[in-house]
Amino acid sequence: MKNEKILIDGLEYCNWNRELFEKAHAGGLNAIHVTLVYWEDTNESFEKINYWDNLIKSNSDILVHVKKSSDIIEAKQKNKIGIIYGFQNSAPIANDIFLVEKFFDKGLRFMQLTYNNQTPIAGGCYEKKDSGVSRFGEMVIEEMNRLGLIIDLSHAGKQTCLDAIEFSKKPVAISHANPNFFHKSIRNIDDDVLKKLSNKNGFIGLSLYPYHLKNHGDCKVEDFCEMVKRLINIMGEDSIGIGSDLCMNWPDEVVMWMRNGKWTKKIDYGESKDKNASWPKQPLWYSKPEDLPTLVDAMVSNGLNEKIAYKIGGINWLNFMSSHF
Amino acid sequence: MKNEKILIDGLEYCNWNRELFEKAHAGGLNAIHVTLVYWEDTNESFEKINYWDNLIKSNSDILVHVKKSSDIIEAKQKNKIGIIYGFQNSAPIANDIFLVEKFFDKGLRFMQLTYNNQTPIAGGCYEKKDSGVSRFGEMVIEEMNRLGLIIDLSHAGKQTCLDAIEFSKKPVAISHANPNFFHKSIRNIDDDVLKKLSNKNGFIGLSLYPYHLKNHGDCKVEDFCEMVKRLINIMGEDSIGIGSDLCMNWPDEVVMWMRNGKWTKKIDYGESKDKNASWPKQPLWYSKPEDLPTLVDAMVSNGLNEKIAYKIGGINWLNFMSSHF
Repeated sequence: MKNEKILIDGLEYCNWNRELFEKAHAGGLNAIHVTLVYWEDTNESFEKINYWDNLIKSNSDILVHVKKSSDIIEAKQKNKIGIIYGFQNSAPIANDIFLVEKFFDKGLRFMQLTYNNQTPIAGGCYEKKDSGVSRFGEMVIEEMNRLGLIIDLSHAGKQTCLDAIEFSKKPVAISHANPNFFHKSIRNIDDDVLKKLSNKNGFIGLSLYPYHLKNHGDCKVEDFCEMVKRLINIMGEDSIGIGSDLCMNWPDEVVMWMRNGKWTKKIDYGESKDKNASWPKQPLWYSKPEDLPTLVDAMVSNGLNEKIAYKIGGINWLNFMSSHF
Repeated sequence: MKNEKILIDGLEYCNWNRELFEKAHAGGLNAIHVTLVYWEDTNESFEKINYWDNLIKSNSDILVHVKKSSDIIEAKQKNKIGIIYGFQNSAPIANDIFLVEKFFDKGLRFMQLTYNNQTPIAGGCYEKKDSGVSRFGEMVIEEMNRLGLIIDLSHAGKQTCLDAIEFSKKPVAISHANPNFFHKSIRNIDDDVLKKLSNKNGFIGLSLYPYHLKNHGDCKVEDFCEMVKRLINIMGEDSIGIGSDLCMNWPDEVVMWMRNGKWTKKIDYGESKDKNASWPKQPLWYSKPEDLPTLVDAMVSNGLNEKIAYKIGGINWLNFMSSHF
């Protein structure tokens, strides 16, 4: 495959409109894994899929819905951005194993087992006690494996990560997080999990969300690149990508909704330790989708082999996805 | 209160019809906590409430919907059976704290945190690893306490029982289970949980479901009564009732649905160790709702003080309920 310069962002949550799509397109993005839901129930999630189907349809000159990984290559050839649907929670499938296939048939290609909190499937990273993967969780993982729906362990608890990596017959992903050796955070990942992930051919997409970065919004690109180089020693050069977790064009209510969903009447501030109810400030060098190619260049100027930098910029994601769909 | 001979079954799951109601009524039952749902989602559960509202309406000469505990006394005075609505799972509220009040407003008065499997709230008794009460679970318990919706720990894991007993500001119930000292079973309860339950003024309804009984369907009423006497030493005479778990008039598909719900494509046989897909055989002395008064008599003839036997037959349940609604 001649995909040397394919650019894929492995997770974004933006309030997309024509202008944002055009900028991402002009910036050279070839595919984006977009988040459709967090706390939404089954019906609301099917409605979100309808919403996205229409969004892609009305921007079909520059967008295409990715159902097979080969659609990404085709999108690039046709000068379009491939859009990959993902859920950042398993709330949409509730306790119904048959819904996994129904959502897959509608084009879902990534699903997180949990979003911070416990689900019927597994434990979230914010729980005092992480259940690991439950008996229903094992059924869901088998079903996701069968269909080729990628198991995303972002926002999962540590035991859940270890259980799911072990139990899944196909490699799993953590689509958007960083190593804890770079920045200690409830959402970032310990070395032992990374090693186990790597041993089972799993994947990590590196996050640009300020709370996952050393010095948050003041993180230097040099420090980020050093982290990448160190991570290659743990994960190898083929299992790392970018999952920027970029959240653009949303009012502050949305970050509070992401944290609180419908699960609490009290206010939960999530990753903000100073009870900040606003979106955190992005690093200047990564504040929009089209900053991905710039980051790839920065990796090269910070000493990373160009071939590896481009793998991380998208080729690795493409290869990982092609082992699923 | 002159309720010396009030008879309450603290849990039944029957396929009710006019004939069954008439028999229970003729047998002297004053109130029954009925199960509306197990695995049903939010919408299906609201529909089940509508179904039950209509069922009560069309049998209003002998039935009344219990919203306050005083409705039970009124039902007895009017020679009717009080029907108390309960969910044997928290699936109906999914991850939405606001649904607790919506269901309470429709007349729900009991809700289990789990049914065998993990939920967003807590761990089920069939899970390898019981999470205990989750962060959402704590919110739900606070909300149930506020409303006066009884927290039912039947089918919960041990850690979940301990956590919920500790965390709840109001006493909690295990509506249908037996002590493990009587019959060791995944659904029955260890002494340390019973002691903790008792210390916090909690309640247990004793089960007549064969898998919860010594020698299952061949259990002798004498053995059951001996268990009651021993349990009084742990729980005291005021915190024990009957929650017969009587399941009548259902085809075998329903017991398999109770076990498998929508959570697995494989067959799960639940409590049946020999893969029996049929309803287990009830003891002859407890096979219909109107066997409750006979059991009370049997407790007396087996050496229990009559006053205590009648407390266990219903007065205790009434007092426990009156501390909630």
